[in-house]
Amino acid sequence: MEKQLIKDLFIKIREQNPLIHHITNQVTINDCANVTLAIGGSPVMATSIEEVEDMVKLANALVINFGTIDDETYAAMVLAGQAANRKGIPVIFDPVGVGATPFRTNRARDFLEHVSVSIVRGNASEVFALIGGESRTRGVDSGDLSVSSKDLAHQAAIKLHAIIVISGELDTISNGNEIVQIDNGDIWLTRITGTGCMTASLIASFAGITDDWFTAAVAGMSVMSLAGERAKKALHENDGIGTYRVKLMDEIFFMNEQIWVEEVHLL
Amino acid sequence: MEKQLIKDLFIKIREQNPLIHHITNQVTINDCANVTLAIGGSPVMATSIEEVEDMVKLANALVINFGTIDDETYAAMVLAGQAANRKGIPVIFDPVGVGATPFRTNRARDFLEHVSVSIVRGNASEVFALIGGESRTRGVDSGDLSVSSKDLAHQAAIKLHAIIVISGELDTISNGNEIVQIDNGDIWLTRITGTGCMTASLIASFAGITDDWFTAAVAGMSVMSLAGERAKKALHENDGIGTYRVKLMDEIFFMNEQIWVEEVHLL
Amino acid sequence: MEKQLIKDLFIKIREQNPLIHHITNQVTINDCANVTLAIGGSPVMATSIEEVEDMVKLANALVINFGTIDDETYAAMVLAGQAANRKGIPVIFDPVGVGATPFRTNRARDFLEHVSVSIVRGNASEVFALIGGESRTRGVDSGDLSVSSKDLAHQAAIKLHAIIVISGELDTISNGNEIVQIDNGDIWLTRITGTGCMTASLIASFAGITDDWFTAAVAGMSVMSLAGERAKKALHENDGIGTYRVKLMDEIFFMNEQIWVEEVHLL
Repeated sequence: MEKQLIKDLFIKIREQNPLIHHITNQVTINDCANVTLAIGGSPVMATSIEEVEDMVKLANALVINFGTIDDETYAAMVLAGQAANRKGIPVIFDPVGVGATPFRTNRARDFLEHVSVSIVRGNASEVFALIGGESRTRGVDSGDLSVSSKDLAHQAAIKLHAIIVISGELDTISNGNEIVQIDNGDIWLTRITGTGCMTASLIASFAGITDDWFTAAVAGMSVMSLAGERAKKALHENDGIGTYRVKLMDEIFFMNEQIWVEEVHLL
Repeated sequence: MEKQLIKDLFIKIREQNPLIHHITNQVTINDCANVTLAIGGSPVMATSIEEVEDMVKLANALVINFGTIDDETYAAMVLAGQAANRKGIPVIFDPVGVGATPFRTNRARDFLEHVSVSIVRGNASEVFALIGGESRTRGVDSGDLSVSSKDLAHQAAIKLHAIIVISGELDTISNGNEIVQIDNGDIWLTRITGTGCMTASLIASFAGITDDWFTAAVAGMSVMSLAGERAKKALHENDGIGTYRVKLMDEIFFMNEQIWVEEVHLL
Repeated sequence: MEKQLIKDLFIKIREQNPLIHHITNQVTINDCANVTLAIGGSPVMATSIEEVEDMVKLANALVINFGTIDDETYAAMVLAGQAANRKGIPVIFDPVGVGATPFRTNRARDFLEHVSVSIVRGNASEVFALIGGESRTRGVDSGDLSVSSKDLAHQAAIKLHAIIVISGELDTISNGNEIVQIDNGDIWLTRITGTGCMTASLIASFAGITDDWFTAAVAGMSVMSLAGERAKKALHENDGIGTYRVKLMDEIFFMNEQIWVEEVHLL
């Protein structure tokens, strides 16, 4: 991947201030709004079935997150997703907890039948469940799978006709053709809630300003992992996970093309 | 405006600990609860149509925020608003995103027909849409309008028979008769989500302890803008937007009559 | 109470990483997820009536919190609670605001009729209302009662066949037989929202790894109060309630058997 492509996105995002519509979960909705602002986007979180299509008309990208879905929210997600498809803006799908319950898995597969998803972001077990693997998702956490992230991302990208982003020790992004892995991050990213959801917001923010959604996916994922790594280094003695969460937002806010080019490790 | 009026409110609020009932959005509901506590109020966030009227009976002020409305929440808002009207406690209305979608605009106008609103707090484009202007609201952000904030606040106050608070570079408060502007604040207040919603909670907290709702509106708005200014000054090198958000709450918590009198700039 | 019992839990919780299913309120749901992670558990927050039973099958404990209940959420709570009963995992019930409105009080009593609750965590007025006392709950805050916390906890434990945890200046835990009080804490724990809800998550996290739910209740409650005390001491000049909230999470994250044994005051 040409680093220059992503360098340009950092400048463009703060100029264009893309509007990112989210239909997301109750747990991390505030984090998603704040991270969208931190990277230079503008979040909107309308969920009523009566207005999601109108809100999509104003948006540059749509995030769909399954964290706390119910029937009503799901119906709004499908309407919004189809409106996004008609408009041609990217749909970023975060299949939180898919594989954990039949309800979640069935709804996710149903969603993929009704909406053309541009980018899927999940952990390995969620993506595995999404493509029909017998899941061992435990709650919303990742389980152990017999397939490598690279193979999984590649297979899922082909099967779902989407860009696949798998968060993990190495993050893996595939469009079914190219594969990029990111060797940044910190284990504490898994000790706070919402880093996955926030990554989807970052990816959407970049995807809202370019037609090259693969590059946008690498940009968004790498911003989270690199910021997570930098936040850990910024801690002082006696700073714990609460402070880490604050510093993570600081580092995303300060992220720019210089820091990114110097410190990102793309494989 | 006599500064003494507001000085007294700072003392009274911490003595009286007003109960502020909110029916608000999912994005910033936690921030609204925390800011109410920080200024000396006590938040309650019940939303079920079966209990909102009973909760209003216990409350000293009611905040209605349109951030993530749906039909069910809207119905609860009307019931709660009418209960507040019967009881004579102030209703603070935050028309988030009004103008962005017909659903939102129509519901806001419907709300104003069914509930007597005491104070409206919004950005310029939301207030503009509320009084029938052809809106250019983009998501939940402010757009550009051809009318000055002063004129808009004045006109809206007369048209809606309410106190109007317009957040902006200068904040503007009008009751249709008097106009106050506040020259405090910081651009970073627009880079975190919820500062508008939190301002409504602050205004409600003050309005819950006085019959002079105009003064309460100036107090609540100025606390947010002044705290936002002070939070920026309190930052150290390498502190970003995450830390700013934490410091903002610190500064609201520490705000008192001395700090306010010395540093507020009322025009 | 043998301190050794609780010392062992600190080690075990980080090894076993219990899955804690929450059906909770919109205000503090993010705090509950983060505190569960901070102590070594794994949170899941599914609320749809269509999947809560399946999610309980994966869980080690269930938290039910009444903060923002409505009919639909309540139905899911009963289903989840009954599934937890069938599976034999502990149900931790946080009757937020019970006593404030008839709706809330009636639903809480109804809940106790349909679900066998293992541990109730509330403030004194909520527990008082729960056992049929004429409540003076004011919103979600504690009121003044004519009964001591010790007597109230004891009576409620017998009446409800549950372990009772009453948060207060001294925290009181009773199983109807034994009574433990905790003399740690800080008044600032009452100045941020969610410390009660987070305590329920901590209790559930411990209860998810042991059959000795009384010890788990003491562990969870004491972690919150001790961390609240330590967070206050960790503040620097000019740190207010925003920073306190961050430090509280830091201190919970760092809590371990050594700190706990040295600093906890059990009566």
